Amino acid sequence: MRILLTVSYDGTDFCGYQVQPNGRTVEETLNDAIYKLTGEKVKSIASGRTDSGVHALSQKVHFDTNSNIPPKNFAFALNSILPSDVKVIKSEKVSGDFNARYSAKKKTYRYSFYIGAFEEPMQSRYKTLINSAPDISLMKKGAKIIEGEHDFKCFLASGSSVKDTVRTVYSIKITKKGRFIDVYVTGNGFLYNMVRIIAGALVAVGEGKLSLTELESVLSSGERTNKIKTMPAKGLTLYKVNY
Amino acid sequence: MRILLTVSYDGTDFCGYQVQPNGRTVEETLNDAIYKLTGEKVKSIASGRTDSGVHALSQKVHFDTNSNIPPKNFAFALNSILPSDVKVIKSEKVSGDFNARYSAKKKTYRYSFYIGAFEEPMQSRYKTLINSAPDISLMKKGAKIIEGEHDFKCFLASGSSVKDTVRTVYSIKITKKGRFIDVYVTGNGFLYNMVRIIAGALVAVGEGKLSLTELESVLSSGERTNKIKTMPAKGLTLYKVNY
Repeated sequence: MRILLTVSYDGTDFCGYQVQPNGRTVEETLNDAIYKLTGEKVKSIASGRTDSGVHALSQKVHFDTNSNIPPKNFAFALNSILPSDVKVIKSEKVSGDFNARYSAKKKTYRYSFYIGAFEEPMQSRYKTLINSAPDISLMKKGAKIIEGEHDFKCFLASGSSVKDTVRTVYSIKITKKGRFIDVYVTGNGFLYNMVRIIAGALVAVGEGKLSLTELESVLSSGERTNKIKTMPAKGLTLYKVNY
Repeated sequence: MRILLTVSYDGTDFCGYQVQPNGRTVEETLNDAIYKLTGEKVKSIASGRTDSGVHALSQKVHFDTNSNIPPKNFAFALNSILPSDVKVIKSEKVSGDFNARYSAKKKTYRYSFYIGAFEEPMQSRYKTLINSAPDISLMKKGAKIIEGEHDFKCFLASGSSVKDTVRTVYSIKITKKGRFIDVYVTGNGFLYNMVRIIAGALVAVGEGKLSLTELESVLSSGERTNKIKTMPAKGLTLYKVNY
């Protein structure tokens, strides 16, 4: 049977999701736990990889098993094996043609900021510090410019070799509660570092360092300006995957 | 001159606030940073110690220095030396008769819970899991019973040898936002583990495991029942010190 896991992790101490020769990864940690539980060396498939330091509230991972463990019990059983920084929050049976990666319709990432004078230990693990409050209404205008289908090569990490750089951003939602700002970006797929660059672009707009006209011309020209910084991994969380 | 620091720390990787022979402590980390900055071996004084694993959003610490560094600049300068899990969020000059410990009028601790089926990595560092939603109105009724001046020997950690166990709890405020519950306890002083036991008592009340009558008789008799658990250190944060 095919099992779908909803997985949450604190990416701080992982070298990203995907297995790699040197370094602790979420994928290997999950596969090891499944092996300890079932005795099966499974090839688990996630909705997508996340980079080193990026977190997940709701990553989706499927795998096939011959085990007799009731589907709902995988969560509890795997959690007794998994370390404290990666846990299964739900397990369920899905049909054999469901694929956590290819069946995904859209994904939402959240980028989180906090406003303050200095780094604060109880905030800085999952949020990026900004020193003064950006103009949220300007950020929302910037978000409207980014929404839609665009060639996002301007928001592609340098050195990346992807050919098709057209993606659709369905929506960007920005919330501010006190000194905490969250940017939720929903799309059909994202280029390497794209959400971290979108977050950097919107903050630059909100801080008045990048005008809306400049943002429009970055998108249309495909040429990023150095006014747009790639925000740190730690503020980014895979928030939701829709099927 | 006397400098007052407002200090925030993530207690996870500290063996508490107070210096001890074996183990990393917040106090020693701060004193080391002050020594590296000023060359002075200071005796810093905090509003009070916090236990192993307990966090602080706003701990207050004073020390005397002959340094010429402008008072406001200590925060920035110390933060360049301090590790990521303890930071100074404000530094200021105070008069020579101000004492971070003895001048404190009241303190507020926050105890944080989240409701869920399983431990979640992005919540569990600073919050304690409870599996089902407690009755908040019952918890608030329980809080009213605990507020006021009482002999809190029923809420003293076993093995503790304090003689005077009378304390005043000025207020207990309980908030629920979605599946997150915060209990703010303000008092003139707290016995060892007292806030963690108050949090355990209020959750037991909210879950229907401890009646309000039982809570009243625990307080009046000074005998704790095993229905009241001491909640884990990780959910506790020193939230505010008033002078």
